[in-house]
Amino acid sequence: MSNYKELKRDCYNANMELPKLDLVVYTFGNVSAVDRNQGVFAIKPSGVPYETLREEDIVIVDFENKIVEGKMRPSSDTKTHAFLYKHWQHIGGICHTHSCYAVSWAQAQMDIPLFGTTHADHNTSDIPCAPPMSDANIAGDYEHMTGQQILDCFNEKNISYKEVEMVLIGNHGPFTWGKDAKKAVYNSKVLEEIARMAYLTLQINPNAPRLKEALIKKHYERKHGEGAYYGQ
Amino acid sequence: MSNYKELKRDCYNANMELPKLDLVVYTFGNVSAVDRNQGVFAIKPSGVPYETLREEDIVIVDFENKIVEGKMRPSSDTKTHAFLYKHWQHIGGICHTHSCYAVSWAQAQMDIPLFGTTHADHNTSDIPCAPPMSDANIAGDYEHMTGQQILDCFNEKNISYKEVEMVLIGNHGPFTWGKDAKKAVYNSKVLEEIARMAYLTLQINPNAPRLKEALIKKHYERKHGEGAYYGQ
Amino acid sequence: MSNYKELKRDCYNANMELPKLDLVVYTFGNVSAVDRNQGVFAIKPSGVPYETLREEDIVIVDFENKIVEGKMRPSSDTKTHAFLYKHWQHIGGICHTHSCYAVSWAQAQMDIPLFGTTHADHNTSDIPCAPPMSDANIAGDYEHMTGQQILDCFNEKNISYKEVEMVLIGNHGPFTWGKDAKKAVYNSKVLEEIARMAYLTLQINPNAPRLKEALIKKHYERKHGEGAYYGQ
Amino acid sequence: MSNYKELKRDCYNANMELPKLDLVVYTFGNVSAVDRNQGVFAIKPSGVPYETLREEDIVIVDFENKIVEGKMRPSSDTKTHAFLYKHWQHIGGICHTHSCYAVSWAQAQMDIPLFGTTHADHNTSDIPCAPPMSDANIAGDYEHMTGQQILDCFNEKNISYKEVEMVLIGNHGPFTWGKDAKKAVYNSKVLEEIARMAYLTLQINPNAPRLKEALIKKHYERKHGEGAYYGQ
Repeated sequence: MSNYKELKRDCYNANMELPKLDLVVYTFGNVSAVDRNQGVFAIKPSGVPYETLREEDIVIVDFENKIVEGKMRPSSDTKTHAFLYKHWQHIGGICHTHSCYAVSWAQAQMDIPLFGTTHADHNTSDIPCAPPMSDANIAGDYEHMTGQQILDCFNEKNISYKEVEMVLIGNHGPFTWGKDAKKAVYNSKVLEEIARMAYLTLQINPNAPRLKEALIKKHYERKHGEGAYYGQ
Repeated sequence: MSNYKELKRDCYNANMELPKLDLVVYTFGNVSAVDRNQGVFAIKPSGVPYETLREEDIVIVDFENKIVEGKMRPSSDTKTHAFLYKHWQHIGGICHTHSCYAVSWAQAQMDIPLFGTTHADHNTSDIPCAPPMSDANIAGDYEHMTGQQILDCFNEKNISYKEVEMVLIGNHGPFTWGKDAKKAVYNSKVLEEIARMAYLTLQINPNAPRLKEALIKKHYERKHGEGAYYGQ
Repeated sequence: MSNYKELKRDCYNANMELPKLDLVVYTFGNVSAVDRNQGVFAIKPSGVPYETLREEDIVIVDFENKIVEGKMRPSSDTKTHAFLYKHWQHIGGICHTHSCYAVSWAQAQMDIPLFGTTHADHNTSDIPCAPPMSDANIAGDYEHMTGQQILDCFNEKNISYKEVEMVLIGNHGPFTWGKDAKKAVYNSKVLEEIARMAYLTLQINPNAPRLKEALIKKHYERKHGEGAYYGQ
Repeated sequence: MSNYKELKRDCYNANMELPKLDLVVYTFGNVSAVDRNQGVFAIKPSGVPYETLREEDIVIVDFENKIVEGKMRPSSDTKTHAFLYKHWQHIGGICHTHSCYAVSWAQAQMDIPLFGTTHADHNTSDIPCAPPMSDANIAGDYEHMTGQQILDCFNEKNISYKEVEMVLIGNHGPFTWGKDAKKAVYNSKVLEEIARMAYLTLQINPNAPRLKEALIKKHYERKHGEGAYYGQ
């Protein structure tokens, strides 16, 4: 009897949201869920299409990327997940997709500007786009360094991972996280919507101004502040 | 036994149209329905996803934003709804969404130009975009002042809320209304279609002319004038 | 017992294709089917949403726009259909929609350029956009004059309605036709695809060249010429 | 009893993926599957809509385009398939569609730039766009010469058909291939996603740089190289 039955189910359910939300085709994504007490996380197996994924296929891995339970190889992005869980104590789930609009901003190597309240309801700043990795790091432990790339980006821009739960990896695509796997997937969907709206906004008005500071504060605080009351 | 059973059902049914019409993801919208005889309106509860919303969750509120019936908190946009019901006597329902194309025009801070007959069948003017609120109002009674912002916009532009049943809040998104909740939702869908077509029109031809006056009159009057005969 | 049972069914079935093909929302379209022996055509009733449309609601009208059978009013576009049936002897069905990409080209008041073989498989020329009507005609018998507007456009551009079975009405939207109602609907879907591809082509390369003459001939003739052999 | 039962089924199943993946409307596509031992391939019949296509309708053809089994005419693109099977020994399936974004790049007559890792996971170079054919070849054995056009393009650009399993025919649309028919269809879907992302990338940032060489190598090799370990 597995010690990770519930963790696997959470991970499985969160993964299965991705095709329903039109965030993946084929195997273009993966979600993980962490159990900090047991020091492990559950993650999608490598190369398994969402149509055939089963709960028992989910792989259990520790923070040193060692397989703890499971017959399949874990996602090739596993080291990136492990890195983030180790460095960011307060996240419970991570999601990675190749959703179309988020990838397009990543390929454009541009932060997504904070244009409106849909964005401000979820983040206090632009969605950062981490610059491409150095050639040395690419040739080295690539997936591990992708985690480092995210960490460096947040440190350099002085952004808190608790306030901004999403990032674009330049030329690659989005990673999102949250208090659990379900929230990480939610953030991937929200990011895709924000990315699409920001794209359209710039097409309609290339000089569209960023949201004024007073509205950024108001929207984030009514949802996340001490006296939070938001909910549509 | 509730006095508001029918009102709740109308409100519930209108809300449930939003995900079917691809106008919302998660909780990104809300619809209300008014009963002017009883001096109350029914509105979506705050933060409840559309997938799990039930008829009995709908909240009854009076025009001073006091909860009259219901166990849940009403939508955080409730004060905007109340404001509009109080000031505009002839509307029976209000709808708010974060639909993608309408939001993008709102973020671009631009009115949607009247380019064609799809638009003219429903409105006699451009869809107005209310300019962002002053910092003082944002810090104050924000959702109440959003109602004021809409009212001011229509007064300044000398537009009748009976002829133009939709507005964009700059940086935020659309509000629509109508004789009942169902019509308000219909207007949200029509607005999204108009917003999408206007976006594409400008991409194809940045110098596309506005519709000529004779066609604006013809299309609006054959649908809404005294001898109305329109229906496709 | 109706003499028009089969005609009504053809008309009904063709109409019901429109929502399935994502060409209409609500009541934004109409299809008709003609019976030249009986001198009448069947058309969608006015203002009935596609979700509730029934076969027995279809209205039978003659070429002078007189209702021959049916309890509902025929579509407000009926006179345009009648005009085209009267002037173009070889068409058996007509379709009108407000599909998004076709409307956007119509609002841009531009012909859709013949950029590729998808277009050439169906038409020998650009899809013409009829210029907006004069104010006098708008104020007059508007829907009748819309038929005249289409006829004038084809005559002035010297295009045959047998080779090009689709047109854009400037500021309004598309009309398509064909040997029967089913083919008219098929042409509306093809037009929407062509309109979308031409839009994207110009976004990717504003200087994209029109298709060379040899390919236009080859593709049209292998599908429609004497030795036609085409079929994917 | 047919010798080609399994081949037909593979071909049928691959064809039926196309409408599910939103890659075709009506008859706008075709897939074939080869049996090199028997020296034949199975291909979709000409002009049959996907809604009514049956397994027994699939046509068996040899590499000289002669029908070996089947009552219907094979796709009008059959000669292009035969040409590619003859010249490229290592492919087992071919797919042709008129999917919207791929066609738009083809109509723009532009290669699809390698902007990101989604692209690099599948190809080592830009997706080539073969230039339009000479008038003499168009007037000649057109579908046969389309195969030649693809071959010439890969030879001139010095690209291996084993590393890049997709091409755009200028003004026409995409052809893709792979080890079997299923993989060919997979490549058509991947191409459509890549084409869409590249389009959006250029809209967001017209100066978006191509992916750096180190990342191209890394991503392709972790999926296709000797020590391949990739799988999301």
